[in-house]
Amino acid sequence: MINVAILGFGVVGSGVAEVLTTNAGHIDQKTDNLIRLKYILDVREFPDSPYASQVIHDFSIIEQDPEVQIVVETIGGAKIAKEFTERALRAGKCVVTSNKELVAEHGVELLELAKANGVHYLFEASVGGGIPIIRPLNQCLAANEIEEICGILNGTTNYILTRMIKGGLSFDAALKEAQRNGYAEQDPTADIEGHDACRKICILASLAFGRHVYPRQVPTEGITHVTLADVAYADTCGKKIKLLGRAIRQEDGKICAYVAPHLVDCENPLAGVEDVFNAISIRGNAIGDVMFYGRGAGKLPTASAVVADVMDAARHLNSKRQLYWGPGGEDVTVPMDGLSCPWYVRANAKTEAIKAVFGTVSFLARPGAPAGEVAFLTGAMDRSSLDQKLAGVEQLSIMRVLD
Amino acid sequence: MINVAILGFGVVGSGVAEVLTTNAGHIDQKTDNLIRLKYILDVREFPDSPYASQVIHDFSIIEQDPEVQIVVETIGGAKIAKEFTERALRAGKCVVTSNKELVAEHGVELLELAKANGVHYLFEASVGGGIPIIRPLNQCLAANEIEEICGILNGTTNYILTRMIKGGLSFDAALKEAQRNGYAEQDPTADIEGHDACRKICILASLAFGRHVYPRQVPTEGITHVTLADVAYADTCGKKIKLLGRAIRQEDGKICAYVAPHLVDCENPLAGVEDVFNAISIRGNAIGDVMFYGRGAGKLPTASAVVADVMDAARHLNSKRQLYWGPGGEDVTVPMDGLSCPWYVRANAKTEAIKAVFGTVSFLARPGAPAGEVAFLTGAMDRSSLDQKLAGVEQLSIMRVLD
Repeated sequence: MINVAILGFGVVGSGVAEVLTTNAGHIDQKTDNLIRLKYILDVREFPDSPYASQVIHDFSIIEQDPEVQIVVETIGGAKIAKEFTERALRAGKCVVTSNKELVAEHGVELLELAKANGVHYLFEASVGGGIPIIRPLNQCLAANEIEEICGILNGTTNYILTRMIKGGLSFDAALKEAQRNGYAEQDPTADIEGHDACRKICILASLAFGRHVYPRQVPTEGITHVTLADVAYADTCGKKIKLLGRAIRQEDGKICAYVAPHLVDCENPLAGVEDVFNAISIRGNAIGDVMFYGRGAGKLPTASAVVADVMDAARHLNSKRQLYWGPGGEDVTVPMDGLSCPWYVRANAKTEAIKAVFGTVSFLARPGAPAGEVAFLTGAMDRSSLDQKLAGVEQLSIMRVLD
Repeated sequence: MINVAILGFGVVGSGVAEVLTTNAGHIDQKTDNLIRLKYILDVREFPDSPYASQVIHDFSIIEQDPEVQIVVETIGGAKIAKEFTERALRAGKCVVTSNKELVAEHGVELLELAKANGVHYLFEASVGGGIPIIRPLNQCLAANEIEEICGILNGTTNYILTRMIKGGLSFDAALKEAQRNGYAEQDPTADIEGHDACRKICILASLAFGRHVYPRQVPTEGITHVTLADVAYADTCGKKIKLLGRAIRQEDGKICAYVAPHLVDCENPLAGVEDVFNAISIRGNAIGDVMFYGRGAGKLPTASAVVADVMDAARHLNSKRQLYWGPGGEDVTVPMDGLSCPWYVRANAKTEAIKAVFGTVSFLARPGAPAGEVAFLTGAMDRSSLDQKLAGVEQLSIMRVLD
């Protein structure tokens, strides 16, 4: 028998308890063992929960119980979650988490600590909710040199953009609707400013390229400035606006990673990813492009990924772990200044003035555009070339176009 | 050092040699070992190949060489490939394959034999080419009871259907184009009649539901009877025709599996899967729907999946294997007679006669339809109910509509 303790009985933690219980027969059979929930650590009591008798408030009970072999950390954040994770690993327990902030900020230290203590630190649920991505990237695509990762990594912003595109709602109205439907938090900053997507692309890049990429190394732009005018112009050229996290391997082996809204052509499968769904596209030198698609959040999908990790840990309690990456550093990433791509520009300017500096560009038209507004797609160039050409132009909106 | 032998130096076999060589540094680092190609078994000589010195013609050299720990079977078919696979497993070597026919027909015996000899039998490349699907299904979705698998599993037929839909080519013209482009074989029967998709859904169903599902238990219909008239009618109601392999878990735990063309709504991500791409959608009771997308065939994508299995075998030479399913039997599957769904019908009939037997249906119209032709979508019903209603009607085309 293998005993599990859950730290934090919120949405994901309670989902983990539910999946462990509902699918217990199936899980025991698949792991060839009995996996049982022994403790739930939370500051609150849950007198009406079927798990009330398992609820405790003192982490040291878990830490000191040799029967607990796997700890599920669903507290979130990088403070108390970090302390408990470190103590659990030091006590020789495997830790499974959905905590993207902790992995993005401290993954390399925690993987190192797990290795030193001969246990596993697993975090499939930290990216893409229930979508299998960490293990496929680490194992199934292992024969490939990864060239690029590009994904819709945040369900909240994808919902907002979908409602702007398909429902004609303004950003503010779409955000309010997302909050009403439980798809956005009351403080939506981490989602709409791109920080959540940033953490996820950091984790994917670290795993794919072998060295820790920190959020501070990843320029991040959210979707708060995307307008219905931009959505309309994108539509006229067969494109949709999507918030993408990207990590691109440069020829020198360094990584260029960033988060920003892009115009994505409708022919690209990423353009068809709607509502709260996530999708992650990976390009390898042998496999070409593969894409993983599903619900990027939610209680049971995320819990499904956590429990898969619990089962993996249970089956490999004493085996050497392959999930690992090396330390970060300033030499790991390059700034995105050198990254060349086509651009979408909306500005107050005269067509002739734009033609004079850009030469041939594709001008876009939309019904109801105010006088003086011009929008166009440029050829591929880096940001500083674009800025030079736009010097003196009153810019309204600038976005990258996905090649 | 771990030595590998490749059996069959065709498209996939030579791709495996190429990936092992090109990405050797990366592969050695990831496996923490040296993986080297020692033999290539083929009846032919390859004097101009960089691997000429590794080519041998006698399998017993591989069988008797204790240095060979992993055998890659890329011969295909279920005869000599089966013999060599059995002999390799009995000799204590892991076997990795892309051979869907062999796995679909004899997977359970070969998994049993591998288990008995303490080695692995791995076949990630047998379904979906390079798309990671076997391992995610077995590991990442392990916490789920799988409810349904539904996929575009054959690139050749998806290419033909895409060219019919987007290029307006007839089936015959699209098939010829596919042959010219190397996407279809000179004898295309296995693809266009659905046998290839059938083998793949058998493998996925066996893995997901735990007992061997044989091709003979899976009713299979290809795309040879799909016409441009059907494509046009589907378009008028926002749907695309796709050849789907499906395996659905019934309430009693039995499996209903089949292969047939379907009308798929454009809102469904499967509808956007074009050309030679494959996509596999899986529904689990915790995760909901996830989809895996990529190139379902091709030298390097398929080789990428084979080499990932080689690396996995190399890392777990002495560990207990989790990939396994139980024996098949007549009690595993149910016929598809009871499967209820909406239907697309094209017939020579009067609208009034159809209304009289079906009640309310959605009639479809297309420009240039011959007099007397009628097409419509029914509500959900099983096949025998449909056939009863259509008794005496001159039927031109009948296809399921994906719910």
